[in-house]
Amino acid sequence: MSASYPWPGGHRAGLCVTFDFDGESPLLWRRRNDPPGDVAELEQRRYGPRRGIHHVLGTLERTGVRATFFVPGHIAATYRSAVAEIHAAGHELALHGWCHEPPADLDAGGLRDTLTRASDLLADISGVRPAGYRSPSFRMSPDGFEVLAGLGLAYDSSVMGDDRPYRIGGLVEIPVDWATDDAVYYRCTGGTETRPPYGAGDLYDAWHAELTGAREAGTLVNLTMHPWLSGRPARVLGLRRLLEAARESGDVWIGTAGELAAHHRATAPGTAGVLDVPTDTLGWPL
Amino acid sequence: MSASYPWPGGHRAGLCVTFDFDGESPLLWRRRNDPPGDVAELEQRRYGPRRGIHHVLGTLERTGVRATFFVPGHIAATYRSAVAEIHAAGHELALHGWCHEPPADLDAGGLRDTLTRASDLLADISGVRPAGYRSPSFRMSPDGFEVLAGLGLAYDSSVMGDDRPYRIGGLVEIPVDWATDDAVYYRCTGGTETRPPYGAGDLYDAWHAELTGAREAGTLVNLTMHPWLSGRPARVLGLRRLLEAARESGDVWIGTAGELAAHHRATAPGTAGVLDVPTDTLGWPL
Amino acid sequence: MSASYPWPGGHRAGLCVTFDFDGESPLLWRRRNDPPGDVAELEQRRYGPRRGIHHVLGTLERTGVRATFFVPGHIAATYRSAVAEIHAAGHELALHGWCHEPPADLDAGGLRDTLTRASDLLADISGVRPAGYRSPSFRMSPDGFEVLAGLGLAYDSSVMGDDRPYRIGGLVEIPVDWATDDAVYYRCTGGTETRPPYGAGDLYDAWHAELTGAREAGTLVNLTMHPWLSGRPARVLGLRRLLEAARESGDVWIGTAGELAAHHRATAPGTAGVLDVPTDTLGWPL
Amino acid sequence: MSASYPWPGGHRAGLCVTFDFDGESPLLWRRRNDPPGDVAELEQRRYGPRRGIHHVLGTLERTGVRATFFVPGHIAATYRSAVAEIHAAGHELALHGWCHEPPADLDAGGLRDTLTRASDLLADISGVRPAGYRSPSFRMSPDGFEVLAGLGLAYDSSVMGDDRPYRIGGLVEIPVDWATDDAVYYRCTGGTETRPPYGAGDLYDAWHAELTGAREAGTLVNLTMHPWLSGRPARVLGLRRLLEAARESGDVWIGTAGELAAHHRATAPGTAGVLDVPTDTLGWPL
Repeated sequence: MSASYPWPGGHRAGLCVTFDFDGESPLLWRRRNDPPGDVAELEQRRYGPRRGIHHVLGTLERTGVRATFFVPGHIAATYRSAVAEIHAAGHELALHGWCHEPPADLDAGGLRDTLTRASDLLADISGVRPAGYRSPSFRMSPDGFEVLAGLGLAYDSSVMGDDRPYRIGGLVEIPVDWATDDAVYYRCTGGTETRPPYGAGDLYDAWHAELTGAREAGTLVNLTMHPWLSGRPARVLGLRRLLEAARESGDVWIGTAGELAAHHRATAPGTAGVLDVPTDTLGWPL
Repeated sequence: MSASYPWPGGHRAGLCVTFDFDGESPLLWRRRNDPPGDVAELEQRRYGPRRGIHHVLGTLERTGVRATFFVPGHIAATYRSAVAEIHAAGHELALHGWCHEPPADLDAGGLRDTLTRASDLLADISGVRPAGYRSPSFRMSPDGFEVLAGLGLAYDSSVMGDDRPYRIGGLVEIPVDWATDDAVYYRCTGGTETRPPYGAGDLYDAWHAELTGAREAGTLVNLTMHPWLSGRPARVLGLRRLLEAARESGDVWIGTAGELAAHHRATAPGTAGVLDVPTDTLGWPL
Repeated sequence: MSASYPWPGGHRAGLCVTFDFDGESPLLWRRRNDPPGDVAELEQRRYGPRRGIHHVLGTLERTGVRATFFVPGHIAATYRSAVAEIHAAGHELALHGWCHEPPADLDAGGLRDTLTRASDLLADISGVRPAGYRSPSFRMSPDGFEVLAGLGLAYDSSVMGDDRPYRIGGLVEIPVDWATDDAVYYRCTGGTETRPPYGAGDLYDAWHAELTGAREAGTLVNLTMHPWLSGRPARVLGLRRLLEAARESGDVWIGTAGELAAHHRATAPGTAGVLDVPTDTLGWPL
Repeated sequence: MSASYPWPGGHRAGLCVTFDFDGESPLLWRRRNDPPGDVAELEQRRYGPRRGIHHVLGTLERTGVRATFFVPGHIAATYRSAVAEIHAAGHELALHGWCHEPPADLDAGGLRDTLTRASDLLADISGVRPAGYRSPSFRMSPDGFEVLAGLGLAYDSSVMGDDRPYRIGGLVEIPVDWATDDAVYYRCTGGTETRPPYGAGDLYDAWHAELTGAREAGTLVNLTMHPWLSGRPARVLGLRRLLEAARESGDVWIGTAGELAAHHRATAPGTAGVLDVPTDTLGWPL
């Protein structure tokens, strides 16, 4: 097995707690040409910015965890005070499109324009320019990485090619994993999408096993959550217990995606086994 | 986190036990233009008014819980004595369309006419005019709330925008949640819909976690069940244990949706953090 | 709650153990106009008559349970010795179409012809003419019940309208339930149907809860299994433990569907609360 | 029940640990005519040859298990050093198409050509010519078995017709089972395929029950895994515990598919109850 990753402070494993604070924006994008006749999913998703975000922030405060929130511009414009509150509580704000557009649905110019607009708004709200990006629906385009680098971003957090931070072109990649994305477990919006939501107990048991695995292997757990899903009462309670367990283990580094990207940029050149993927290898190989 | 909700009697959390007593009506609506050639789902759904309702009423009697039953007019007309029995046992009757029509499939006049007809029938059976409504399939239309207010209703229980009662226009909203709807866990009707039903043990474990979360956060658990699904023997036994646990906790208020709506209407004006959604913000925002 | 059902011998609840011994016949019917280019599902289903049936028969012998096997004519013709072995071990043989044709896909004459042919074959193999029928895919047609009665059958076991035996026209109905059908939990045949099979432990936990519920409510558990699915080693071991638990409970009557139908026919006229459904109410009511 | 299988060394049951080391090749084949616009699944699958394979090899080394790796030619060409490492660690290399083509999508000549090319490459890397084959997606064609025999292969491991080794034409078949294939439990690639991945704990509980069932019945457990899925940290930890439990049971033979095929070929002629399927019975029987 390859050399173990040099986690900050000599820890055995890493944990990033991240939220895609997307509210109704994915629905607005997906149904932009055929708006639904009912208010069901719209109102369901608005639970996130209205209520879920407050449950989430309370949980983070109680466990002393600073998290990363990827916020589409449309949501920042619509729920400006909630976004200001996230920043004021010491969390990181990062980019997530203007209205949750996957890069694969845009050309390079469209990606650049929506991110510039969203970055300006987040900087205006918080006084800090975002350093990172997560692609909506994890659907990153092969040429998107160079657009991000051109905008001066430090990191991306969208793809699944490693279980530790790695390099893609000029960016640090903080990798994700479907098994630690709450949407595939909790999303149920009616109509044809009536997969039953996981019980809160079952999901945090599974994520605790992810943490145990990472501590054994020296790898990263990068939780991807959504306030309209994970912000519900039974779920924030399960999340609280998971974060407390991570803290009490003593050997897990916990921090924002931006902090981990900065750490990687500083230490990677001297680290054996760290992956560096050239952007020209990302396209379709046939 | 926002101020805690003022539950009646100083309780920490709220529990509404509700049933959509819809029997075969959703199938009749859905297949109205292409009736199935087999009797499978029709007979499966008729289990509800024939047998499931009796198991449900027995369970409620045994646990001393009064519940709310949302009853389509067609079902009230077809199974009039079962509906009279529900009322006689002290439960609340409320509206659920004439033949389970989602508001988003009707215009405002159609919604008004079907509800007027159903309200007349329920009043005729019980002597009491219904005060509330739940939209079939949770597919509420943006203009449906004003139709409900125009009919003199006090509350709706159809959407998911909060975890406590809130206001939408002139109505109280008693919010629902897919995670506490039995249909996404239990519905299996053959053909292409052969998702395996949850085990009774698994679902009530998950709902017990919902109750624990609500007691921690001071919020509402609003169970949505169907007698043709939750009325089966293993399931009413699980439900009985859940209701007993809620009672024994001592800090959970349990009552009908109508009672909670009346409480909210009386106390909300003086309550910090209570949400009031104008109906003109419910439509498609783009 | 309605009067309790008079189970034989004063037992509290009933258990029928039934198998749809269909092997490859459902695939042959479903793909009759577009045969698959691969042998995957064909070979997977042949596991049933080749191997699964022997694991099943060994489990029944070990637990002392006599079961009912619904056998399509095509399977009886192809695996005649396995069917003879089932009969020789004391189990009941019953009808399941010629090549697993759902009645809703046939006219009345087609149903009559396929069942006559299959009945002749089963009688030829076993010396006993079958007394019961289960509709393939549980897709019974409204006029099918009269065809069955016209063929002199005593019972059907295809629909879900009660949790105790009941009457439909001139037949006894031994009702089924998707929650006790192994196919929705175990079937996984590749292609677009790659729902993960339930773990053997999880399913028998759920079915044990079904048995507990039935003992509480005085109702029937009617297990529907398939040798190509439930005949695999981990599953017959779970089934064995379930059947042992049913026996050890002491208050569960266990017998064949045919025995239960005969009991019902003898006792039903004097039993309160027993359902009798006229066949002219089974069609589409709108 | 039929005679028990003569496992090597008098063991009660058998365990083959196999990996389809397919990486991105199934995606390249499936989307060959409509490449995706995003890099998501491509990068997700590359986790296998980059990282997952190392976690897998470490786990096998630690538990002292030799496994079989079915490797498409395209993957062997792209990740030659990883394939050499597998061989150097004492594991078996076997065929899995050139670019994960299911035989049912090729004619006999196409199957022969892709396998000849892949066999040459694996022999060139390892110095050993592969003796076995697994059909991609388990979609074996009826005439594929004779192609394999014509290429001099000793065994196939693609179909599900028994729970012990058996004969199909001139080949030994080492049968598989969807219930022990990690893909149906773990695969989640976004888009329309967002079935939630099983928790690592849940799957190894289920597979432990498979092992218990096999020890009771004297049968084979043939695990089919993929480094891009089962190679993730929480999962290799669960797998390690499963393999340790198998070892500690003392009555389970553990070896490669190739070793089991050789054993079967040597002992089968004198074994009662061993199945021999003529290839001319595999096609569509109607």
